[in-house]
Amino acid sequence: MNIVVQKYGGSSVADAEKIKNIALKISEKVTKGYKVIIVVSAMGKSTDGLINLAKQISSAPDPRELDMLLSTGEQVSVSLLSMALKEIGLRSKSLNAFQAGIKTTDAHNEAKILNFDSEKILQLLEELDSLVITGFQGVTESGEMTTLGRGGSDTSAVAIAAALKIDCEIYSDVAGIYSIDPRLYPAAKKRKFIAYDEMLEMASLGAKVLHSRSVEIAKKFDIKIYCGSSFINEEGSYVVNENIIIEEPVVTGCSIVENETQVFIKNLPVDYRLVKSIFEKTASEGLNVDMISIINTDSNLVVSFTIIESKREQMENALNKVFEGMDTHEIEFRTGYLKLSVVGIGMRSGIGVASSFFRALEDIPIKLVTTSEIKISCLIDAQYKQQAIDSIVKEFNL
Amino acid sequence: MNIVVQKYGGSSVADAEKIKNIALKISEKVTKGYKVIIVVSAMGKSTDGLINLAKQISSAPDPRELDMLLSTGEQVSVSLLSMALKEIGLRSKSLNAFQAGIKTTDAHNEAKILNFDSEKILQLLEELDSLVITGFQGVTESGEMTTLGRGGSDTSAVAIAAALKIDCEIYSDVAGIYSIDPRLYPAAKKRKFIAYDEMLEMASLGAKVLHSRSVEIAKKFDIKIYCGSSFINEEGSYVVNENIIIEEPVVTGCSIVENETQVFIKNLPVDYRLVKSIFEKTASEGLNVDMISIINTDSNLVVSFTIIESKREQMENALNKVFEGMDTHEIEFRTGYLKLSVVGIGMRSGIGVASSFFRALEDIPIKLVTTSEIKISCLIDAQYKQQAIDSIVKEFNL
Repeated sequence: MNIVVQKYGGSSVADAEKIKNIALKISEKVTKGYKVIIVVSAMGKSTDGLINLAKQISSAPDPRELDMLLSTGEQVSVSLLSMALKEIGLRSKSLNAFQAGIKTTDAHNEAKILNFDSEKILQLLEELDSLVITGFQGVTESGEMTTLGRGGSDTSAVAIAAALKIDCEIYSDVAGIYSIDPRLYPAAKKRKFIAYDEMLEMASLGAKVLHSRSVEIAKKFDIKIYCGSSFINEEGSYVVNENIIIEEPVVTGCSIVENETQVFIKNLPVDYRLVKSIFEKTASEGLNVDMISIINTDSNLVVSFTIIESKREQMENALNKVFEGMDTHEIEFRTGYLKLSVVGIGMRSGIGVASSFFRALEDIPIKLVTTSEIKISCLIDAQYKQQAIDSIVKEFNL
Repeated sequence: MNIVVQKYGGSSVADAEKIKNIALKISEKVTKGYKVIIVVSAMGKSTDGLINLAKQISSAPDPRELDMLLSTGEQVSVSLLSMALKEIGLRSKSLNAFQAGIKTTDAHNEAKILNFDSEKILQLLEELDSLVITGFQGVTESGEMTTLGRGGSDTSAVAIAAALKIDCEIYSDVAGIYSIDPRLYPAAKKRKFIAYDEMLEMASLGAKVLHSRSVEIAKKFDIKIYCGSSFINEEGSYVVNENIIIEEPVVTGCSIVENETQVFIKNLPVDYRLVKSIFEKTASEGLNVDMISIINTDSNLVVSFTIIESKREQMENALNKVFEGMDTHEIEFRTGYLKLSVVGIGMRSGIGVASSFFRALEDIPIKLVTTSEIKISCLIDAQYKQQAIDSIVKEFNL
């Protein structure tokens, strides 16, 4: 049995017309001799609509009930797509997370997939051409609904592909993976192949094509992911093991994360237990921090990191709890920044990437720099966005 | 543990404001020492919205997929209501049909409840003030989603009350049960008590307060149903065993069903196997027929019955299949009718109801009459609606 997983995002199933088109696309694959497992997100902006409803009830909706609410979005789209598939003569069935046996951890709103009932799915596929499965959601051991966080449908699709050891195709409104988001730089080059590690850096840095956890799973189980457009017929990109990539430019991509706020804590006593408490507290509050930088001036510590702007109030409250009773330190929030990063597995061996990077940005005041093996990131004022992009694209020929 | 079931219809949970109000109403009951099981319908007209979406995909949506689709509506409202209950400090949890263990037959779109996991619910209530359960839906033994048909949330509520042997309160935008729909006759009298059998005749005849099957279950398990308004504080009506009703007017209610079409089949050979085939075929097509009347003129048969206007095309197709190859008969469809009925347990012993009925309607051409032990119905032209209502209300002092 030739099986493939296809995932379609919200914009691909935004209305009845689009759903019918996706059904035709799937039937082409069936005609080629495949059984197709389709994972879909909620229609268009419907998840936002549901969140908005919840916010009208409570400023901080109960996470468990929020998952009950949000998981309906995908159930709507799978049933409609399955109807559309049957309408054009395919044998199809939709499954929600209960029915597909998608078991997750019990961390509501950000659950992780534990396992998946692949035996049942293979058995169902014996009699069917296609199975449409709700993305983004799962069920805990005790039968509670969970969701996997934004972009979680990618993770659902890859997890299913991994369980069945088959390829995964992810369709969205972007025709592949570019060296830089084409909305930021229209002449961006599309990559035919990109390595898991590059994609991981790109995804967590804001290249919104693939959810990070989906790439982690693909890497772990060596699942080839194809990323292509739901709407146009144009060759997309493959996310693969780096060993199979021949062409290896030093820097393969540039990504931008906007609305960054720098948190700046000065005059801290030199006591790393305090540093530990800061990051323990932010973690327990579910606050993502990035670009951590700590400087020891001997007399005191300066701790700095970035958060997304919308989390500022929550971060202030968290820090106030950590520093309760202390008064020598100063906390400052600096807003209006963006993070620009360049990524490439070639950087591991490539020399001079840092110097090219700083040469490209020499006219722009850089607030903070962090690096990893295959990435350099800097924080700059949002006003320099276009100037920085143009210089980086030119310098690295993206 | 004092437990009560409350059911709220779609108009009671149509938006966030209304949901918050319902939460307050529930908290009053909790303050009085009750644990409350709440059954809710989908918000406002959202089920219609989902059906409309399905119709954009297929003119005859697959019944199994339609149930997957429609069952999301209630999951949205239970999660929002449970959020609202937690927001005001109540310990609450929402459950969908999987979680509540509502098992049904596998007749999609019109499933019947088989059983319900009352043990789990009692256990959950030990730690909670309220449990919010999706109405209208269930799960088959093999894990398929089903729905119970229009008005099915009433049935869910009463079935849960029956399983737990407790009372059931049904709240809607109508403040109780009237002798005639107040939208048809504003001065209609509200009944304090109404017997199960009266309610059954009223419900199936179009008094849209309670779903018929819910009354059947209440009768079978002797569950007292209170029907009241979600919005105003005014004593509602009780649907109870007729033995506890003291006041017993001969006729207790009048109901109207509009958009009736009479199907008239003439010149049939006197062969009752043919009659059997007609009703077997309509049943297998899921077509509801009403007011059946068959006349044997010795030389041939005249078969007549009514259907709702929207089913006319489907009925024509069904009859064409039954009569394939035959040509002596004539089929006629007469549209634009309404059915008017008067109902009352007092009719069992009351004498002269029929004569009062015909006296009231003496100026109106009656097309068809059927009767049961506690009901007389007639089919009349829709143009006589108001005249007929006024005469009947006056005659029977409704």
